[in-house]
Amino acid sequence: MPRTGRRKGSPDTREAILAAARDAFADRGFEGASIRGIATSAGVDPALVHHYFGTKDQLFLDTVGVPVDPGEVIPAVLEGDREQIGARLVTMFLRVWGDPVRGPVLLAIVRSALQHDWSARMLREFLTSQILRRVIAKLDVPPEEAAIRAALTASQMIGLGIARYVVRIEPLASAEPDDIVAMVAPTVQRYLTGPLTL
Amino acid sequence: MPRTGRRKGSPDTREAILAAARDAFADRGFEGASIRGIATSAGVDPALVHHYFGTKDQLFLDTVGVPVDPGEVIPAVLEGDREQIGARLVTMFLRVWGDPVRGPVLLAIVRSALQHDWSARMLREFLTSQILRRVIAKLDVPPEEAAIRAALTASQMIGLGIARYVVRIEPLASAEPDDIVAMVAPTVQRYLTGPLTL
Repeated sequence: MPRTGRRKGSPDTREAILAAARDAFADRGFEGASIRGIATSAGVDPALVHHYFGTKDQLFLDTVGVPVDPGEVIPAVLEGDREQIGARLVTMFLRVWGDPVRGPVLLAIVRSALQHDWSARMLREFLTSQILRRVIAKLDVPPEEAAIRAALTASQMIGLGIARYVVRIEPLASAEPDDIVAMVAPTVQRYLTGPLTL
Repeated sequence: MPRTGRRKGSPDTREAILAAARDAFADRGFEGASIRGIATSAGVDPALVHHYFGTKDQLFLDTVGVPVDPGEVIPAVLEGDREQIGARLVTMFLRVWGDPVRGPVLLAIVRSALQHDWSARMLREFLTSQILRRVIAKLDVPPEEAAIRAALTASQMIGLGIARYVVRIEPLASAEPDDIVAMVAPTVQRYLTGPLTL
């Protein structure tokens, strides 16, 4: 989204807020961080944070820079047959990774996450708090299982992304997305809604 | 294994052979690389490569530096009930990652694999050619499925390692190994011996 005119604000102020937000989200996680605390660290009024970045969700997404909008992804994944939710999640995941613009951004984020602790925490918060926990909250599974279901799902998604796009293990690296979905979706579906142990 | 006396050879010669081996394995994969070609690149006699490093297998392992001996892992994984092979593989994987000495080495290798193409290729060759393909060869599955079964298994193993030990997604990061095995082994078992699609 291009921001124009006054809303863009001083680049220095924006950067100071983003830096403070990055620290806060990395230290305290998405839930633990507050706009007020971030504003204090950045030396600005909380109203200015809202003015530049909107909600805490939007600030978080701007901080991480993930080229995925949970507001689009989550409804698309949830819409339709509950037993196909794994397939829709894997399909969407492969679409983002395979995108010529968004794929390389995602790759840079994953690479950074393996080098820097703060970056690993941001990736974790994005995948779990912003996407998977919100999907799982709609799935009518016991709330106490939500965190482990999200973590297991994340483990298969992260591994699929790295095996296919980074380490490039054949024939996974050049397989058709639909074929991968058919093989991996049952795993993701079990982690999301199935029995946790067999 | 400490090497002593004459077998250690000149450090320069050893390093030259290791560098040539790294290039060869990264360029052509484990199967494609030859001791003869590596010796030629290093400017030494092939007999010297065998003298310093033994077999091609051993040279590869020295090149990668993975703190895992396939000669120990594979028989241990294969021994016992075929339907528990996924559980044994995940158990062993968590044991290596959780080891105070070998875990950090593995982490360094995975981090390197995300930064450098040659390193990614080495990790891929180690996981697939040295471990998973050799396990799968004993499992009486159609040979044409061996590569995709190895790749899918690798995707879940890599993702589990990164989610638990690098990105540290809770409650996976602090879960007991046995609990993780119970949840993840069915995935690995299906990738190894089960139906590829459901």
